[in-house]
Amino acid sequence: MTPADPAFRDRVATAFAAQGFARTLGARLVSVEPGRCEIDCMFHDGLTQHHGMFHAGVLTTLADNACGFAAMSLLPPGGEVLSVEFKISFLRPGAGVAAVARGEVLKPGRTLTTCRADVHMRDASGRETLAATMLATMMAAAPEARGANPATGARDIPAAPGTRRIAAPP
Amino acid sequence: MTPADPAFRDRVATAFAAQGFARTLGARLVSVEPGRCEIDCMFHDGLTQHHGMFHAGVLTTLADNACGFAAMSLLPPGGEVLSVEFKISFLRPGAGVAAVARGEVLKPGRTLTTCRADVHMRDASGRETLAATMLATMMAAAPEARGANPATGARDIPAAPGTRRIAAPP
Amino acid sequence: MTPADPAFRDRVATAFAAQGFARTLGARLVSVEPGRCEIDCMFHDGLTQHHGMFHAGVLTTLADNACGFAAMSLLPPGGEVLSVEFKISFLRPGAGVAAVARGEVLKPGRTLTTCRADVHMRDASGRETLAATMLATMMAAAPEARGANPATGARDIPAAPGTRRIAAPP
Amino acid sequence: MTPADPAFRDRVATAFAAQGFARTLGARLVSVEPGRCEIDCMFHDGLTQHHGMFHAGVLTTLADNACGFAAMSLLPPGGEVLSVEFKISFLRPGAGVAAVARGEVLKPGRTLTTCRADVHMRDASGRETLAATMLATMMAAAPEARGANPATGARDIPAAPGTRRIAAPP
Repeated sequence: MTPADPAFRDRVATAFAAQGFARTLGARLVSVEPGRCEIDCMFHDGLTQHHGMFHAGVLTTLADNACGFAAMSLLPPGGEVLSVEFKISFLRPGAGVAAVARGEVLKPGRTLTTCRADVHMRDASGRETLAATMLATMMAAAPEARGANPATGARDIPAAPGTRRIAAPP
Repeated sequence: MTPADPAFRDRVATAFAAQGFARTLGARLVSVEPGRCEIDCMFHDGLTQHHGMFHAGVLTTLADNACGFAAMSLLPPGGEVLSVEFKISFLRPGAGVAAVARGEVLKPGRTLTTCRADVHMRDASGRETLAATMLATMMAAAPEARGANPATGARDIPAAPGTRRIAAPP
Repeated sequence: MTPADPAFRDRVATAFAAQGFARTLGARLVSVEPGRCEIDCMFHDGLTQHHGMFHAGVLTTLADNACGFAAMSLLPPGGEVLSVEFKISFLRPGAGVAAVARGEVLKPGRTLTTCRADVHMRDASGRETLAATMLATMMAAAPEARGANPATGARDIPAAPGTRRIAAPP
Repeated sequence: MTPADPAFRDRVATAFAAQGFARTLGARLVSVEPGRCEIDCMFHDGLTQHHGMFHAGVLTTLADNACGFAAMSLLPPGGEVLSVEFKISFLRPGAGVAAVARGEVLKPGRTLTTCRADVHMRDASGRETLAATMLATMMAAAPEARGANPATGARDIPAAPGTRRIAAPP
């Protein structure tokens, strides 16, 4: 797939860096290629469900981000994405020293982009096992005014070079 | 719906308290009734996506927990749940001072329980707006041995009174 | 919900009548209200899966149609819909003398409409049991040129009064 | 993947032949391998949505069957499957002379099997285009008593050699 914006890597990196929740998880943007994105996250006690493994919500967040940024990599300059919906199936327990999500675009579109992502558990020796798989719909957000949380007045994220602020979704 | 275990509230509260990720979010178990569960979470900068609103992964985690604990409330003593899969649709931006997820059981079963959850945004005046809706499949986990993360040796969660340890899933 | 087109019932009825597959099933458009649609279908031997009950694909088709036409009822004159995606959970066996799907709009939008539908089994006494539930995303199709199947040259459907032909999707 | 039943092909072929709905569509069981299944269906006027293309419900039925029989191929003798739930995303219009669904098992299990399927459109020259993709959960049905539709008394399907009748689901 051919990116419409040669600066797509910077655009994705800036959006990723602006996510307070990615910082909270300790998630790391590993790589972005046209139509692809990899994100990983080390296991720690703050990410567990009630059996001491990765919470399903952590794996889902990583997969959602991997899909969203895979979609964003193909958008024209200033293009941003919103998650319309996704479905995730959990195949094996979330037991590993790290979780790795790899997202890819199945079908790009001007408005909607359909993506999939696999989430693997990585053990101490680096071996990976498939733990979850996602199918997601992402929507290109009109780059108009990037809104702060209107209900809280939460500090707005400075727009990255080459991006404009986006309006509220659907 | 009639609970099979009169101590279902304690069982759910113990499991919720054992989730490191719920603590990381600042999520709060508001209520558990037979086949129903409500969980909420105040907005803060550590929960944002790249536009300064609630990350989709936060809303998903709250909804997953609300579905899982609604299912768990109907299980016999010692019964625990695992998320098999879920799908969530995002209807409006995650903009609010708090997010509130309400889960309910659509169809209980010995092995599988189908649930749904709505996630509302709450504004400063307490008014709520529907932001997302989930459809989920939960699986009753055989209460045998509750495993620590085998890859990390992460500290095991002490079993609650009336629960036993559960084995790895499907 | 307020319909943008007072002739929404005719528009939906015309689209429903144009579905060869609805005729094949023997499906019937029971009612259309703003943001709501009900469709039913009598059981017969041509609709079974391998245990002699309604095939999951039949229930899914009814639910997809009920969601799609619920969405279509709120669109402006000429507006048509396409299914972007859906997820359906099967709660009980598809055993009944008829299946009844009721769809409703959860969140209308200019481009995307999120819908849900329940599918009930009806027995000989008219009693209903919930058999399946769907969550769906529908997309408004630009009313430009309603395409025949380009690969087959299949006979085009005459456009209804007040509709225009629509172009291919996303 | 290794089949637990050397006669898995016969078992799948018998179940497929017992589906009244597959006959109604004109669907054809192309191939079954351990953990894989391909089903196709020629386009005709009885399978259309309101724009003269394949109805989403047809593509979904083919994908559901391809997933279900891929799962069934790995079950022990007598094992049958029920669809627990699935999600399907539609990527391109259902325009072709035939639709081809290919299902595969992502994760087999004693109780639950997670599958995926792609549905391609085939044009007159045999070229294929991806039109839809499904993620599905299948459940192994206890081979006890294969039920007729209790509400209709519809003619029961004769059990295949090596199969027993199955009980009602979850």
